[in-house]
Amino acid sequence: MHTPASKVSGYVVLMIVQIVFLVLFWLFVRYDKSALPARLDNEDAGSADEHVSKYPQFQDIQVMIFVGFGFLMTFLRKYGYSATGYTLFMAALVVQWSVLMKGFLHMEGGKISLSLESIIDADIAAAVPLISMGALLGRTTPIQLLCMSIVEVALFAANEYLALNILSICDCGGSITVHAFGAYFGLAVAMMLRPSSDQNEAGKHEGANYTSDIFAMIGTTFLWVYWPSFNSVLAAGTGGERAILNTFLSLAAATVTSFVVSALVSHENKLDMVHVQNSTLAGGVAVGTVCNLLLGAHGAVLIGIIAGTISVLGYRYLTPCLTNNLRLHDTCGVHNLHGMPALISAIASAIYASLVTVDSYQSELQDIFPAMVGNNGTTTKIMGGLGRNASSQAGYQLFGIALTLIIAIGGGILTGAALKYASFRNLQKDEQHQDEQYWEVPALESKEE
Amino acid sequence: MHTPASKVSGYVVLMIVQIVFLVLFWLFVRYDKSALPARLDNEDAGSADEHVSKYPQFQDIQVMIFVGFGFLMTFLRKYGYSATGYTLFMAALVVQWSVLMKGFLHMEGGKISLSLESIIDADIAAAVPLISMGALLGRTTPIQLLCMSIVEVALFAANEYLALNILSICDCGGSITVHAFGAYFGLAVAMMLRPSSDQNEAGKHEGANYTSDIFAMIGTTFLWVYWPSFNSVLAAGTGGERAILNTFLSLAAATVTSFVVSALVSHENKLDMVHVQNSTLAGGVAVGTVCNLLLGAHGAVLIGIIAGTISVLGYRYLTPCLTNNLRLHDTCGVHNLHGMPALISAIASAIYASLVTVDSYQSELQDIFPAMVGNNGTTTKIMGGLGRNASSQAGYQLFGIALTLIIAIGGGILTGAALKYASFRNLQKDEQHQDEQYWEVPALESKEE
Amino acid sequence: MHTPASKVSGYVVLMIVQIVFLVLFWLFVRYDKSALPARLDNEDAGSADEHVSKYPQFQDIQVMIFVGFGFLMTFLRKYGYSATGYTLFMAALVVQWSVLMKGFLHMEGGKISLSLESIIDADIAAAVPLISMGALLGRTTPIQLLCMSIVEVALFAANEYLALNILSICDCGGSITVHAFGAYFGLAVAMMLRPSSDQNEAGKHEGANYTSDIFAMIGTTFLWVYWPSFNSVLAAGTGGERAILNTFLSLAAATVTSFVVSALVSHENKLDMVHVQNSTLAGGVAVGTVCNLLLGAHGAVLIGIIAGTISVLGYRYLTPCLTNNLRLHDTCGVHNLHGMPALISAIASAIYASLVTVDSYQSELQDIFPAMVGNNGTTTKIMGGLGRNASSQAGYQLFGIALTLIIAIGGGILTGAALKYASFRNLQKDEQHQDEQYWEVPALESKEE
Repeated sequence: MHTPASKVSGYVVLMIVQIVFLVLFWLFVRYDKSALPARLDNEDAGSADEHVSKYPQFQDIQVMIFVGFGFLMTFLRKYGYSATGYTLFMAALVVQWSVLMKGFLHMEGGKISLSLESIIDADIAAAVPLISMGALLGRTTPIQLLCMSIVEVALFAANEYLALNILSICDCGGSITVHAFGAYFGLAVAMMLRPSSDQNEAGKHEGANYTSDIFAMIGTTFLWVYWPSFNSVLAAGTGGERAILNTFLSLAAATVTSFVVSALVSHENKLDMVHVQNSTLAGGVAVGTVCNLLLGAHGAVLIGIIAGTISVLGYRYLTPCLTNNLRLHDTCGVHNLHGMPALISAIASAIYASLVTVDSYQSELQDIFPAMVGNNGTTTKIMGGLGRNASSQAGYQLFGIALTLIIAIGGGILTGAALKYASFRNLQKDEQHQDEQYWEVPALESKEE
Repeated sequence: MHTPASKVSGYVVLMIVQIVFLVLFWLFVRYDKSALPARLDNEDAGSADEHVSKYPQFQDIQVMIFVGFGFLMTFLRKYGYSATGYTLFMAALVVQWSVLMKGFLHMEGGKISLSLESIIDADIAAAVPLISMGALLGRTTPIQLLCMSIVEVALFAANEYLALNILSICDCGGSITVHAFGAYFGLAVAMMLRPSSDQNEAGKHEGANYTSDIFAMIGTTFLWVYWPSFNSVLAAGTGGERAILNTFLSLAAATVTSFVVSALVSHENKLDMVHVQNSTLAGGVAVGTVCNLLLGAHGAVLIGIIAGTISVLGYRYLTPCLTNNLRLHDTCGVHNLHGMPALISAIASAIYASLVTVDSYQSELQDIFPAMVGNNGTTTKIMGGLGRNASSQAGYQLFGIALTLIIAIGGGILTGAALKYASFRNLQKDEQHQDEQYWEVPALESKEE
Repeated sequence: MHTPASKVSGYVVLMIVQIVFLVLFWLFVRYDKSALPARLDNEDAGSADEHVSKYPQFQDIQVMIFVGFGFLMTFLRKYGYSATGYTLFMAALVVQWSVLMKGFLHMEGGKISLSLESIIDADIAAAVPLISMGALLGRTTPIQLLCMSIVEVALFAANEYLALNILSICDCGGSITVHAFGAYFGLAVAMMLRPSSDQNEAGKHEGANYTSDIFAMIGTTFLWVYWPSFNSVLAAGTGGERAILNTFLSLAAATVTSFVVSALVSHENKLDMVHVQNSTLAGGVAVGTVCNLLLGAHGAVLIGIIAGTISVLGYRYLTPCLTNNLRLHDTCGVHNLHGMPALISAIASAIYASLVTVDSYQSELQDIFPAMVGNNGTTTKIMGGLGRNASSQAGYQLFGIALTLIIAIGGGILTGAALKYASFRNLQKDEQHQDEQYWEVPALESKEE
């Protein structure tokens, strides 16, 4: 059944990809001048310190990507090596690819400039295929996952460029460009890889055990505590502090709400670890796009309450429905954690954009909604309001999420088709949700312990 | 026996609390001006950066609260969902409540100002009921815990206001206002909820297993490494660096001492995980109140040695005695980790306060012991020493801890009585220390694995 | 067989060591002036802020030492208490010892100056015996480990002083002075403690189980994400940003390579958790010595690819060979994670040093290669190049690693001999790789769960 030859060729392709990266780094990438020694004849150095002031936030995001996502997906009882291992593998591949891809979109003089910002962007990009991986968890080979991530990150970079640089939408915490994109791309791939109708029941290993559920809480708690860093890292000016405050409050409100709604809708009113592990985080996604806006504490809390509620209801009612009717198996429920909350965030961004005034945002309008300021961006122009008006910006926000959905779903369908019909090996039913097919797993130890 | 109706009404009450919070945020809370865009006609912004310079320390404290406390309490073998889950639930509720409560005590113009400082204070406040939860672990319903935390945080805010603003005691790392308060409040509640004398033996699930003990070490190690951030976050001037150094050294000395004393007093001289998980941290508590003072490295190390010794001896001899004689079940031994070390810290603060001279603290006397400086606080006044003298400040330190104990124990007794006799459901003996009553728990998987 | 008396005397010795530390702190250690209040008559304080700007990186390194190393070593299925516990014990002892030892080498006026830098250095020093502990894991008593760490850290401090201050080699991330030293010292001790030839088969507890392997991934992922902090914390100027970027890229490339090579060389092309847990980190070690140099992105990626490859091949082929032929049991494979990658780093440093020009490093030459600048270090001298030339610096780099190997291996042999033949108790074959000998372990719980 299982042919090592297919594995070997897959891994060899990935090695070739790594070597191609090496060559591209050599040809195109140079240190940014912030990372180069100041010239002796020009002693005004010291800008380096300023440049790395976002380093602590970068490190927080590192933990979210490598520890947070990895452990969040360890909840399956026989898939912990894969959850933590493929996260590491995929993120390590994607961060390099992102430096190159995003670099190609912003080249200067034919060279890509490498700085702390490049690797912050790279970590954010790594979140995208990791979200998609959640929709597919246990149903693909590692080769499929890795190949998917390469295609997906290229499309993500293109869509992000369109949304932020061409459409000029606001998306400070990336709920549109990162969470919605990753979730719907992954769901589209999952749709293409869905089982035949006689194979639609849950796999025998598709469940948690007591220990694996607690491992998953490592992921949940680290994602929770560091989410304000994810949302605020790209914010400018005082928007950074607002992003921290709004994200914190939205997460707190979503958490309380998730617990309550989980208990109210569950069997015998017992709390469900799936909701606790995931829906508590929905507040971070739902506030993402608008986190640097003037929401007020109540705005952030309200968004959190809505997100927590919808996320738990999604897990409880929508996911089983999608599985049974569409054979869409969303293993981690990314639709409930990333998909729907991101849609909420996009809608919220249209509402708040429609309320923007120069008077409220003052000097920061230019940073947050650059298209609302005249082309040359002077103070006079801001006061004069020669740019896009508020309701027009609201329309662009909705256009941005629509475009993202189209590219994500379209790209996901094509990628899924390629993964299914190209020469990739597909997992059989009984090979799913367990590590043994691709990992050396210790023999059962129950006898001796 | 078990009536879902009681659960439903409890959770509904918590939802109402969340909605009341929403309304209060809407009515009273506004962004601090550090989080508001600078006016266009006043371009001297940039103060934002300075304002968020404590952000990395805030994030460290976030990890302590959500990961540290949560995992430290996973040591019970069948209570891991509750330990990590209720920590998340309680902290998410309390942080919102703290922003409001502490805000009401410092309103300006009828509004509460929201800034990074608010949420740093909120995370610190969340530690208080989490400490109390340790004394009660496994013996209450989640509804009881959450209701307790609301009352407790209100009392904590009042006591802290009295101690710091009225009595002007020093308590940089919060050992008096946070640790002593949380521990003795929790112990008083536990006293009220103590079992009848024929039910006093240990519950059948009240113990660790090999895996749960290692999960608990996640909590221990993160609390250990980030404790210097907890103690130093509110320190001003060079006191911040002293707080870091003193906390680090005290923790290190307490750790070495805990291991040695654990081995010396244990059965067959074997190390005991309870001591390793908890007493190693006692150095952080015991140095808390005095961490920004001029202890010298030897002072910090000496405090650590004393704390480690007393904490291990407390676990080994005092806790069993309290359980057997008073039926006081302190599940996590918070008396040994937080209670007694906090008393040591309070006594140390009286000793060090009695030695304070203007010559030693110079310009920082005002920050650390404001009452020792004349009312207008000018340099001349400091030199002249018109304020409280050193032995008087020492007396106030002791008065501060005494007041804290009275409020904590009194409040705890009343709260415990309410939890016992009001319409709350109480856990029966065989429902304790296990998740199953309030959580969906996977069926035994031993057959298939 | 087992005499508690030997344990008691060992622990008593450690307590005496702690008390000696207390006395030495009292006699010799004083706060650095950055941690002392500014004098009232000299109001130019505020330098404190600058002084603690490395605090976030310090905290990252704290996590690496206490969480990263501790959990990385939990992979043995019955040795998790020891892995996390002894890491905490050893690190707590060593950080104090390091403040003293490194302080004695840099005293001013007979006093040791205590500042944030002291404890950054202390955490780095703690890595050294923790690396050695990896080579010995499960084969020593805690008393042996702790005594070893005291000797080792003294030798480490001496060797580091020779290498950095006398030979003036560059070693920004410590691959020569920390990783090579720790690995080869540990291997030399392991060689001295090797079993007799009739006892050479693997111990019955020397293996992972499913849960312990996932615990180990906590260590791996935290070491991975914070490694850029370890490598960059001592870098000056723009070298800090380069150290971050180079370490990040090298780790990413090593990770992708480790996965691919692991699959290609393993049985049935399955991934091996040993490689995933360890070899993915080899990129951080291999780039360490040169991380602040002008490697370019391609240089960092190339070093990562080489390190990942060699590390996996080492685990697959070299380690079994050493075990079978030399009876050298390197439990964690520190030779593959720290030893060989550190040698790669040393060789790379010689190559890059030989290419250094004043034109490329400009004003930073003095920080990075001080010996290449004339004695008085003026700009004129740099331009004139009156110091050591590039190929001479390359030679010193090689001399530095050679000296380090000699001191590490020589010191390890002597220390190992002392541990074996002095009055220390040695573990018997069946006492190895399990906690029970030195820890209270819960009784088997399989019956009731």
